[in-house]
Amino acid sequence: MTTGGADVSGRYPSWPTHGREGANTVLQELADAVRTAQSLFCTARDVERLLAALQVTGNVWELAQRSAVPLLVLYQLLELLRSRRYVRYDGERIELTEHGQRLCQDAHIAPQRVIRCPRCSGRGVDLSVLADVRERFARIAANRPTAVRRYDQAYMVEDATLARVAFLWGQGDLTGKELLIIGDDDLVSVAAALTREPARVVVLEVDQRLIDFINDVARAQDLAIEAVAYDVCQPLPEPYRHRFDTFVCDPSESFGGLTAFLARCLLGLRGQGAAGVFGLSRHEASLQKWHRLQRWLNERSAVITEIRSDFSQYQNWPYVEEMKAWAFLPIRVHPEKPWYQSSLIRVELLDRPQIANEPLSPEIFMDEEAATF
Amino acid sequence: MTTGGADVSGRYPSWPTHGREGANTVLQELADAVRTAQSLFCTARDVERLLAALQVTGNVWELAQRSAVPLLVLYQLLELLRSRRYVRYDGERIELTEHGQRLCQDAHIAPQRVIRCPRCSGRGVDLSVLADVRERFARIAANRPTAVRRYDQAYMVEDATLARVAFLWGQGDLTGKELLIIGDDDLVSVAAALTREPARVVVLEVDQRLIDFINDVARAQDLAIEAVAYDVCQPLPEPYRHRFDTFVCDPSESFGGLTAFLARCLLGLRGQGAAGVFGLSRHEASLQKWHRLQRWLNERSAVITEIRSDFSQYQNWPYVEEMKAWAFLPIRVHPEKPWYQSSLIRVELLDRPQIANEPLSPEIFMDEEAATF
Repeated sequence: MTTGGADVSGRYPSWPTHGREGANTVLQELADAVRTAQSLFCTARDVERLLAALQVTGNVWELAQRSAVPLLVLYQLLELLRSRRYVRYDGERIELTEHGQRLCQDAHIAPQRVIRCPRCSGRGVDLSVLADVRERFARIAANRPTAVRRYDQAYMVEDATLARVAFLWGQGDLTGKELLIIGDDDLVSVAAALTREPARVVVLEVDQRLIDFINDVARAQDLAIEAVAYDVCQPLPEPYRHRFDTFVCDPSESFGGLTAFLARCLLGLRGQGAAGVFGLSRHEASLQKWHRLQRWLNERSAVITEIRSDFSQYQNWPYVEEMKAWAFLPIRVHPEKPWYQSSLIRVELLDRPQIANEPLSPEIFMDEEAATF
Repeated sequence: MTTGGADVSGRYPSWPTHGREGANTVLQELADAVRTAQSLFCTARDVERLLAALQVTGNVWELAQRSAVPLLVLYQLLELLRSRRYVRYDGERIELTEHGQRLCQDAHIAPQRVIRCPRCSGRGVDLSVLADVRERFARIAANRPTAVRRYDQAYMVEDATLARVAFLWGQGDLTGKELLIIGDDDLVSVAAALTREPARVVVLEVDQRLIDFINDVARAQDLAIEAVAYDVCQPLPEPYRHRFDTFVCDPSESFGGLTAFLARCLLGLRGQGAAGVFGLSRHEASLQKWHRLQRWLNERSAVITEIRSDFSQYQNWPYVEEMKAWAFLPIRVHPEKPWYQSSLIRVELLDRPQIANEPLSPEIFMDEEAATF
């Protein structure tokens, strides 16, 4: 792109402003249309992110991955962009029209760029510390139970599970620690215990197939893991309260689902100085939900010490056509590569918080942004 | 380390608990002693982090870097540990005594490990996109003004400045954007403008030497930068309010200093969807201060989208003996390598916040954790 016009001082080139302002108005109108029609949180910046991604890919799943726009917002925006002739659907691909290219140009939206370390995929951790674990983990994971919709399962690619363990290790959250993992289709428990660093790993899991699988692996490999049946809608049983140094979870992303998992996890921690990590996507959680969750955590004496975007990628799950978002998908093509990704967030407790431990209704797992359940 | 004892199920080995609990009580007493005597925020986890670092290094500056314990807390803890014979000072080095080693063992504190990608130093970004800029930036930075205490200056190593620009680029906060930089001894403006990606870069800076330096460079290299005199204690002038897409700053870390810089920066942003990055250390900001700042940001419609620890390292500054913390330093040795580091934090606005634009007193730059001013 080139620059044009002159800034207020008249000395340096800058973008022409009136064409840009007109284009910005279009972005704002598109965002407002989604907000009004669908009660989904959407900003002009989301439209910008989508237009940046549309200059790089025409695959609907890669658009989701690259734009970081909530899935249901993305689909509505694509339909709106098509109705206003900024994009056209060409078979399985989505293309910017000339009109759409012009909009990008006027709004000064450049093609999206991924500027991520090629060695660590931007995660920042060194997987070579897990060289021995990696192979053993791969052999174990090859026999894992299939992801099922009933429990909103979708497990991470193996490197993402390993990277999560490496991250915990580097933060001092692994060695000699007692770990609580609520929901573990990712098999973080197995990767963590294979390092022989944790003192103890407890998995609370709703899926009996996973409980059996993890306990069988633990027995066969002599790993310090116990997997126990637990439904997050039930109060956390007494033996698991205020007992752990570190939690790990990857919650369902409705706001109720997030706070259900995190409340049980925080209640499981000993108190001040205990910590934990969880995944949070941009596909099912708008930045408005992120904001709400940050306040929720801060109110519970949890300080956020780390947020690493695009840390975890997920294997495509077999029930893609059954998920809520499928019905809204503008082009019904199956994803060919992993596209769903989440940020890794670490919190540390400044104090032991007051956490309610009530039974919850399964309805908590739905909200207007939840897409995969 | 080895594991011993048995967990409640009796099936798997785990750490013996009674020796551990006694050791944990010692850690808690040490933390409480610092909290009571010095009114500094200190947790048993801080003591643990220091003991983990003490197993790896005896250099007081490397201890600060590796432990992430606030500097003034670290110094008090070292003196306490010495008075209780857990450490001894051997010339310029600090060593765990046998008693101290035993404490680590009983509390199951392993030597601190850095598990960071060797290619990107854990920053996660790919500097190869800046290959052309890098050399030009190095030549320019070689002639930069010296850091002075008067303005609490301490500039980043060049790779950290470049990584910050690469990060902005990957987030879509650079190309075609108008950048506001408040305080720029790091020369982010120069590195950013050398990419030719931003539409405009405005530097508001208190130090006339830097203003002249940056404007001279901009003129000589035809860069879209304007550096203007501005003291953050003064209200943000009208032409800079609600005008920018992206802010960058690296504030003084007293709470008043942090919020002064960030308030001016947020006021400089257009509104919803605009974003910014800043540095925050663990050396001068306890996690309690981090927590307070997160709430402050959330209350101003800013959602935190990224926190990358140890992203920025700083050149040692020439006035180390004049800084507040020097008087408390248990061993008066000069740092030989960069040790001060900060996390990179990115926020994005969900809305245009109400931000006061009052004059502030220079006293805002001091608090009980501020160490370098």
